[in-house]
Amino acid sequence: MTTSNPPVPPSGDSSRIAFWFDFASPYSYLAAMRIEDAAARAGLGVDWRPMLLGPVFKSVGAPLLPLFAIPQKGEYTWKDLARQAAKFGLPWIRPSQFPRNGMLAERIMAGHPDAPWTGAFCRAVFHRSWGLDQNIGSEAVIADALREVGVDPAAAIARAGEDESKLALRLQTEQAVALGIFGAPTMIARGELFWGNDRLDDAIAHAAGKA
Amino acid sequence: MTTSNPPVPPSGDSSRIAFWFDFASPYSYLAAMRIEDAAARAGLGVDWRPMLLGPVFKSVGAPLLPLFAIPQKGEYTWKDLARQAAKFGLPWIRPSQFPRNGMLAERIMAGHPDAPWTGAFCRAVFHRSWGLDQNIGSEAVIADALREVGVDPAAAIARAGEDESKLALRLQTEQAVALGIFGAPTMIARGELFWGNDRLDDAIAHAAGKA
Repeated sequence: MTTSNPPVPPSGDSSRIAFWFDFASPYSYLAAMRIEDAAARAGLGVDWRPMLLGPVFKSVGAPLLPLFAIPQKGEYTWKDLARQAAKFGLPWIRPSQFPRNGMLAERIMAGHPDAPWTGAFCRAVFHRSWGLDQNIGSEAVIADALREVGVDPAAAIARAGEDESKLALRLQTEQAVALGIFGAPTMIARGELFWGNDRLDDAIAHAAGKA
Repeated sequence: MTTSNPPVPPSGDSSRIAFWFDFASPYSYLAAMRIEDAAARAGLGVDWRPMLLGPVFKSVGAPLLPLFAIPQKGEYTWKDLARQAAKFGLPWIRPSQFPRNGMLAERIMAGHPDAPWTGAFCRAVFHRSWGLDQNIGSEAVIADALREVGVDPAAAIARAGEDESKLALRLQTEQAVALGIFGAPTMIARGELFWGNDRLDDAIAHAAGKA
């Protein structure tokens, strides 16, 4: 099988930082909303890398919902997320459904790897899911996010349904595993992995050659 | 059963922050070396609360070594610990044995709950384990740490072997579970749990009424 949009290989380019995420990951939300501004302040660009956490967790032997596998940790995690969102000034609603299915939005991103609206679309989807408690598994919500960033929803959603987009997301997920990724968000900076929203600043400092 | 040194109940005292840890926990090391200074800058005192993570993990259904249950995450964790230690200016050696047995040192702390040397002794033990790669399961290493903080090793080690000290540590571990603790380090500030070295600043801000 071939595709005209293979996953972009991990770059050693020190002017970029790769951001690996799944829309279903709440800590990815906290990082996704901040990384482009933080990177820009350090003179860095962001490579957006959606992946499907389900296959990643399966391949490393993690539970399907690692944050919530232990009830005490799960309850704590909801409190922590609310506190962290408040700290960063991000809107937050404990979701009425969890996890939500980000596959459509991820296929759209995988099917348009070089689009200039990628970052803005990513934030628009994350905001709807975690800031507004909307069902990002629905085409209507994703169409609304596409319109917000100036993209024709019909064409983008149709393209996401093509084999090429599905394959691109699948290959990118396999690449995540090959890179040693075991959770989200993961930032890759000059070949080093940084896992978790708590490592955003460290990852950017490393990418910028300051750590 | 009774003891003259029952675990101190969690305090709503807003001038204190409780620090729950196990010497076997590497992220507890990163927080333990910093918390007393950070708390003092916020006008807060620290209540040191050793616990046995083994029974805590068992009671919540976590793996015995959660950081290392997934190989990819385990390898990452060693890198992360080295980077975080460097960031905080703390000495770090990837241990030649893991986990190490902190029970003797924890029984000493549990057997002397009100001793003025508690914090200094805690740091002396953590430093030997994670900064010097010494076996803190050995009496000789613990005796050295006690001498460093001006305590007679023979008496303190003898007291740690008494039922009262053993029971105090066991009850404190049960109390940790009852409080909802599922990992280490955990800070408790004005009744709220904050888990992980990454939440040290947030916990202190909360204790100080600033978050």
